[in-house]
Amino acid sequence: MREVAIIGIGQTKVAEDWEHSLRQIAGEAIVAAMLDSDRDRADGLFVGNMMSGLIGEQENLGVLIADWVGLPGVEAVKVEAACGSGAAAVRSAIMAVSSGALDCALAVGVEKMTETRGVDITAALATAADADYEAAQGVSFVGLNALVMQRYLYEYGWKHTDFAPFSINAHANAMHNPFARLHEVITEKDYHIARMIAHPINLLDASPVGDGAAALVIVPLESASRNGKPAIKIIASASTTDTLAIHDRKDPLWLSAAAASARKAYSQAGVGPQEVDFFELHDAFSIMSALSLEASGFAERGQAPRLGLEGEITSQGRIPICTRGGLKARGHPVGATGVYQLVEAVQQLRGEAGENQIDGAKIGMAQNIGGSGATVITHILAAAGQE
Amino acid sequence: MREVAIIGIGQTKVAEDWEHSLRQIAGEAIVAAMLDSDRDRADGLFVGNMMSGLIGEQENLGVLIADWVGLPGVEAVKVEAACGSGAAAVRSAIMAVSSGALDCALAVGVEKMTETRGVDITAALATAADADYEAAQGVSFVGLNALVMQRYLYEYGWKHTDFAPFSINAHANAMHNPFARLHEVITEKDYHIARMIAHPINLLDASPVGDGAAALVIVPLESASRNGKPAIKIIASASTTDTLAIHDRKDPLWLSAAAASARKAYSQAGVGPQEVDFFELHDAFSIMSALSLEASGFAERGQAPRLGLEGEITSQGRIPICTRGGLKARGHPVGATGVYQLVEAVQQLRGEAGENQIDGAKIGMAQNIGGSGATVITHILAAAGQE
Repeated sequence: MREVAIIGIGQTKVAEDWEHSLRQIAGEAIVAAMLDSDRDRADGLFVGNMMSGLIGEQENLGVLIADWVGLPGVEAVKVEAACGSGAAAVRSAIMAVSSGALDCALAVGVEKMTETRGVDITAALATAADADYEAAQGVSFVGLNALVMQRYLYEYGWKHTDFAPFSINAHANAMHNPFARLHEVITEKDYHIARMIAHPINLLDASPVGDGAAALVIVPLESASRNGKPAIKIIASASTTDTLAIHDRKDPLWLSAAAASARKAYSQAGVGPQEVDFFELHDAFSIMSALSLEASGFAERGQAPRLGLEGEITSQGRIPICTRGGLKARGHPVGATGVYQLVEAVQQLRGEAGENQIDGAKIGMAQNIGGSGATVITHILAAAGQE
Repeated sequence: MREVAIIGIGQTKVAEDWEHSLRQIAGEAIVAAMLDSDRDRADGLFVGNMMSGLIGEQENLGVLIADWVGLPGVEAVKVEAACGSGAAAVRSAIMAVSSGALDCALAVGVEKMTETRGVDITAALATAADADYEAAQGVSFVGLNALVMQRYLYEYGWKHTDFAPFSINAHANAMHNPFARLHEVITEKDYHIARMIAHPINLLDASPVGDGAAALVIVPLESASRNGKPAIKIIASASTTDTLAIHDRKDPLWLSAAAASARKAYSQAGVGPQEVDFFELHDAFSIMSALSLEASGFAERGQAPRLGLEGEITSQGRIPICTRGGLKARGHPVGATGVYQLVEAVQQLRGEAGENQIDGAKIGMAQNIGGSGATVITHILAAAGQE
């Protein structure tokens, strides 16, 4: 298996965008990534996208986008794993390059959620859950997460406001990310009085959806040079699953797929959580931040809110998370999110994160989740020579 | 890159099936493939499916099916390339195993088209074309193919009935395939008087959709033993694209992606069309049989109908096609079709094709197409020791 590296990154600002189509924003991210990589050609394109069929009446996105961006003839497919589609596409690109099948692969995550042909977005997001056994009962995706959060508060004795630091940190970090959807500092009071969505999840526990695209250029490590700058090495890529429906799990408060995915990733990378300098986690809802931190070994079970309350998740803390805003404030264009996370991790490892820069960041982790912990894909990156 | 082989196959009968859900038929094909492989565990699942989001309100099929069939924790994603989704999923499984990431991968193609939440299937199939530049003009997928066929008849001077042998051959072969949707011998007269769908495509030029699932078990060649029977080696896997919209092509009668895909596949396998003993091609419409044969080097441009008229496409001919009924008579459950083709190729190479058996078949090719020649994936298989 060839080692692989990232030599180019690109992204669009997450937004409610009535002016550009799916192919246009995907193209914008791809062109930015190709320019950044200093290459003019890729031989494969892996598109992460969840809902273009349902809300856009468009499938065959691989060739649609390859054709649009001027990559005639390349191999091109769409990869889907609900909100984990972005990282799933990246993992496909990694396997294509590491197998030797391709020498330069593009991964792009893209979602266009503003125009929906009249399909309700809450219903569209529920297609990530089990249509026959969850959605058919009328429960929405936020409803499922609300049940989990309620149980967590009950089981471990936290108050709802103990989750405020997750959202406050994300919003604070997004202030310095020009690609973020929300540029708005929030306070504990804002969090406390925010409009209720599905008890106990309120508006500031939930990430905003949006239109967005992010792209990576992936090549064999041995050929990874980029304008004289160090390439970013992918030292772990691990994908696992749990049951799709939460009610089938022994313990709804334990993300076993996240735990297995992190464990595999640590083993591949030869590092543990103590070596990870920052963690781009999947904070679709604040409860998911807590569960992801616990499953990935950064907190004991039931104790993740303490990391927030003690300031350990900020850029000066022990384990900075959502360093450029996370899903909560950068935004969550679902099939694109996993690629945004990796773009941001590359920025940190290159030292290009501006005011969000984590001092001395050498190893970064990103975890993308599809469904309520159903599909979990973890990547660990390192500046070449740092692993 | 590790060499890989197929050690297990499974499929369901293509049908209008009101009794079983998508996960049930996918599970049936997977269990059959696992039993056939004599393994009891796989470590990855790649699902080929086109339209579950739009017509089934269900995404996240990877984990849905892994969970259902009892493969807890495995890596699992959906791969989509319109009607080419099946072979695209197989290719993902191949890259996962050849890269060393996985040691035993399942590929399953599945489509459930009978229940559609009221979405019109013709509209759903049009999501394989360009929504903004083709479908938005009101042209359907069969309409696009009709334009191509009309042009072919005009350009090369064939009569419509010269295409009858493609359909007659497919129907004749399906008589001996218990998994085929249509068991009905047709004659040239039947073809001649068939109901018109979109001139010049009539009912017997078009393949029937349906519900179906087919599965493969893929492992490294070095570990490919299966009940003492020879494994089937994958000696080529090649995926390419053309423009998505037909109107963007220099020549609408030349499938450049099929030509490039076949050329790459021949190069990987070290064989040419003359060494291929049978060809499972993508006869969604009879015109596609002709274009696929020409692009893949079995006929000169504009001359493929001659192969049919001279009997060369039957099991006794020079290049047998659609040996178990093809899309035309086995049926075309779109995201599953590419896997059915490979299941049938394995049957031929194992000598398990019953009355459809091609004498002395050693090398078989399958070509799966997404959109109107937009995404083309070609595989070449060989009985181990025969390549």
